[in-house]
Amino acid sequence: MPATDRECKIAMLTLQDTLHVVGGKWKLVLISILRAGKLKFRELSREAGISSRILSKELKEMEMNGLVTRTVCDTNPITVEYELTPYSDTLSELITVMHAWGKQHREKIKG
Amino acid sequence: MPATDRECKIAMLTLQDTLHVVGGKWKLVLISILRAGKLKFRELSREAGISSRILSKELKEMEMNGLVTRTVCDTNPITVEYELTPYSDTLSELITVMHAWGKQHREKIKG
Repeated sequence: MPATDRECKIAMLTLQDTLHVVGGKWKLVLISILRAGKLKFRELSREAGISSRILSKELKEMEMNGLVTRTVCDTNPITVEYELTPYSDTLSELITVMHAWGKQHREKIKG
Repeated sequence: MPATDRECKIAMLTLQDTLHVVGGKWKLVLISILRAGKLKFRELSREAGISSRILSKELKEMEMNGLVTRTVCDTNPITVEYELTPYSDTLSELITVMHAWGKQHREKIKG
């Protein structure tokens, strides 16, 4: 655990950075879904069960943080496709650890 | 990565469980702070820089999930002390992985 006050403050900031980028109810769920391959906006909305309004906000933030790419497809009507970036792989360990914790927490709560 | 649809749904649920219990801006920060030892409510509010209203909501949820204990101290005026439970140790790996990801994300963004 960091010793000095300054180190503690930095540790808190980096933790909040992660929570800011991947926290909230949906981002890691969207990443989990997209790991199976790119999807169109509507497909993603249906698969995750999120409204278009919330989904577009989440995807915009994920795009800003370099986790997904957005491709406009020349279809009629125009469709937009989302795909994970290689950088999103850096979240694999975090998703795995979160899965494991959620699973054991469920078992503890069931008792 | 889980194969069947059902496994995928369960994987999403356990991920959301973790996000529900430790997501949000403050819970993991509070756990990080309390790892240095128990603190009174006011001390915690000052150390984390959170309002009493938000802090008491976060601590109530953490208490419900078995992450902290709340002790009323027979002082004048009465004070309330918060301490991590042994169960909160199960979050150590998650906090470490989040620290590491936040740190590398900061470096990437600074470019």
